Amino acid sequence: MDKGAIMKRILVFGADGYLGWPTCMHFASKGFEVCAVDNYFRRRACLELDIKPLIEVPSLVERSKIFREKTGLEIKTYIGDICDYAFLSKVFKSFKPNTVVHYAEQPSAPYSMMNREKAVFTLTNNLVSTFNIIHAVKEFNPHCHIIKLGTMGVYGTPNINIEEGYLEVEHKGRKHTFLYPKTPGSLYHLTKSQDGDMLYFYCRMWDIRVTDLNQGPVYGIITDEMQNDERLFSIFNYDDIFGTVLNRFMVQAITGYPLTVYGKGGQTRGYLNIKDTIACVDLAANNPVDKGKYRIFNQVVEIFTVNELAEKVQRVGNQLGLNVKINSIKNPRREAEEHYYNPIYTGLKELGLNPHLLTDDVLAEMLELCIKYKKRVNNEAILPKVLWG
Amino acid sequence: MDKGAIMKRILVFGADGYLGWPTCMHFASKGFEVCAVDNYFRRRACLELDIKPLIEVPSLVERSKIFREKTGLEIKTYIGDICDYAFLSKVFKSFKPNTVVHYAEQPSAPYSMMNREKAVFTLTNNLVSTFNIIHAVKEFNPHCHIIKLGTMGVYGTPNINIEEGYLEVEHKGRKHTFLYPKTPGSLYHLTKSQDGDMLYFYCRMWDIRVTDLNQGPVYGIITDEMQNDERLFSIFNYDDIFGTVLNRFMVQAITGYPLTVYGKGGQTRGYLNIKDTIACVDLAANNPVDKGKYRIFNQVVEIFTVNELAEKVQRVGNQLGLNVKINSIKNPRREAEEHYYNPIYTGLKELGLNPHLLTDDVLAEMLELCIKYKKRVNNEAILPKVLWG
Repeated sequence: MDKGAIMKRILVFGADGYLGWPTCMHFASKGFEVCAVDNYFRRRACLELDIKPLIEVPSLVERSKIFREKTGLEIKTYIGDICDYAFLSKVFKSFKPNTVVHYAEQPSAPYSMMNREKAVFTLTNNLVSTFNIIHAVKEFNPHCHIIKLGTMGVYGTPNINIEEGYLEVEHKGRKHTFLYPKTPGSLYHLTKSQDGDMLYFYCRMWDIRVTDLNQGPVYGIITDEMQNDERLFSIFNYDDIFGTVLNRFMVQAITGYPLTVYGKGGQTRGYLNIKDTIACVDLAANNPVDKGKYRIFNQVVEIFTVNELAEKVQRVGNQLGLNVKINSIKNPRREAEEHYYNPIYTGLKELGLNPHLLTDDVLAEMLELCIKYKKRVNNEAILPKVLWG
Repeated sequence: MDKGAIMKRILVFGADGYLGWPTCMHFASKGFEVCAVDNYFRRRACLELDIKPLIEVPSLVERSKIFREKTGLEIKTYIGDICDYAFLSKVFKSFKPNTVVHYAEQPSAPYSMMNREKAVFTLTNNLVSTFNIIHAVKEFNPHCHIIKLGTMGVYGTPNINIEEGYLEVEHKGRKHTFLYPKTPGSLYHLTKSQDGDMLYFYCRMWDIRVTDLNQGPVYGIITDEMQNDERLFSIFNYDDIFGTVLNRFMVQAITGYPLTVYGKGGQTRGYLNIKDTIACVDLAANNPVDKGKYRIFNQVVEIFTVNELAEKVQRVGNQLGLNVKINSIKNPRREAEEHYYNPIYTGLKELGLNPHLLTDDVLAEMLELCIKYKKRVNNEAILPKVLWG
């Protein structure tokens, strides 16, 4: 198989999102032909829920034009829903991808726990989008490498090490290697466990090739291709629905809102900078997995408790002259607030990942950028409103 | 909690099916108030695929009338689709069940592997029906006990014992108990693994109570309440889509068709008589599980290889004067044809199950009944036509 051919035509689903857009710019800058697909779900949901991202960004089609004007590089765009197989088929037939990156799932745990309608949307959108991609690959390009964004949240917090995707079990003198068992903590995380089971199933049945990137919470705003042009920035949410924890803390810090630690704050997770998300997807795309293989990476860089994150933001924020308070609030989720947590994450480093760490300088830079957009913050979006129970 | 109240109002989804109808008659005969719900999916699919069951049975509504005329017992019926939450809500509000039995999933592995449309129907029907039941229970009756029909097929054929639902893993000196990891072999089986993960999730989040019956392939026609009236018999399929293996073998034997063993025939599974399905559901309903618990039983009675089943049918068939041949055909599925298989199935016996075994007499009785309807057999429905790959 021609490895070069695999790597040069990349189709990105969920291309308008926090990770999708910087991914498109990155691959275009690296000489890939890039096709960007989105149905604007995030924008519609933000409108419905009265949530605004911190930095206003033009539509995907507009950003693609701006990027072309500045760089001369093309990002082809299609606006539509990949749960509609007729639409997806057209995209596959016209673009003929060698790699697809699947970010097109509903990505919020609180959104999935809000009510029945949003939960069933999360369930069907996340599973049918993945299902349709699998079937389109089989129908139109069986060699295509599927890279799906997963989440470390599928594992929950088991009392043993979280191995990288698979677990060899010794039981009554016999051995078997299983897909690592999942214990997700929200309906969203459940769907990400279910889609992984589906990808693994079709790898076994149809010899498709899949990389699943079980990512921890991402923080950060800027990637190399944004060129100091805020119109090319990502959609950055700081609200309780679409904002990740460190991004929320930064916006709380700059507006004088006490950092919202849920419960005891001993919840431990693996984090990474958005720059490393892009680097990991690049490594996966440039090192496609063999046919029939379901490859899983645990995509994290550093491990922190929520308390440690809050204390970092407080310390660096105070150095910048902010007066950062921390407030433990009743946990709206059902989760362990103190637990063992030891994930293994060596696969991407072995492929060459050179991680960005969460230094004080990095935090200060992000806080200063947030301060620039402080007047856009809506305090009402900060407190959690969705209860799990 | 009043245990009596839990047990006496039972709502059966998929009530027109092979297991649903005898379940309804059983509980009505035992003094339960029974509500039977179906959307006639099986009948519509049989019509579309030109498949006829061996014995023609009246509609659910008609059978319910016939049963009332013969016994004086009421089985309330609703025809509709529980993936439609408005319909499901009406049923819950009007009937107020204490127990629900969920047979309303698309139950055929080959159907789920036929094409994209049938696969996506299986995925969404099976997950959304389960999802809606969970939400209806939470909204209308949080105490209600959900009994879901599962399948042993979710486990696949691991090289270690198949424990009853959960697996304690010792790994690098630490221990954790996981839901037993699943390795399903068809999209249908995948959805049954995914619905189990969903039920387990909502048990943890919402304290619902669930029993999952991981059943092996069922055989047989007659249950105690059918009263020698063929209008009260079950829908009995012998085709490659909806027929289970032993039922198919019996119809092949009586028509002189060589028994279709797939590949080497070393595929090993746990089987049970339809009478024991009813007995197991009865035991689950009469022994509801605690709130917040996801209880799993491996619902099998005896273990056989496909070759052993074929040889049994051949021996008993020949004693009845049939000339039964066995023919190994190319396996249309992707599955291990020789493998370790040791499932644990003690839970239902501990509750009091007194199993029916597959004796020569039982086989002879079933073969003789099939012979009665021999003229209805369509040979074209016998050979497998759906390939996995």
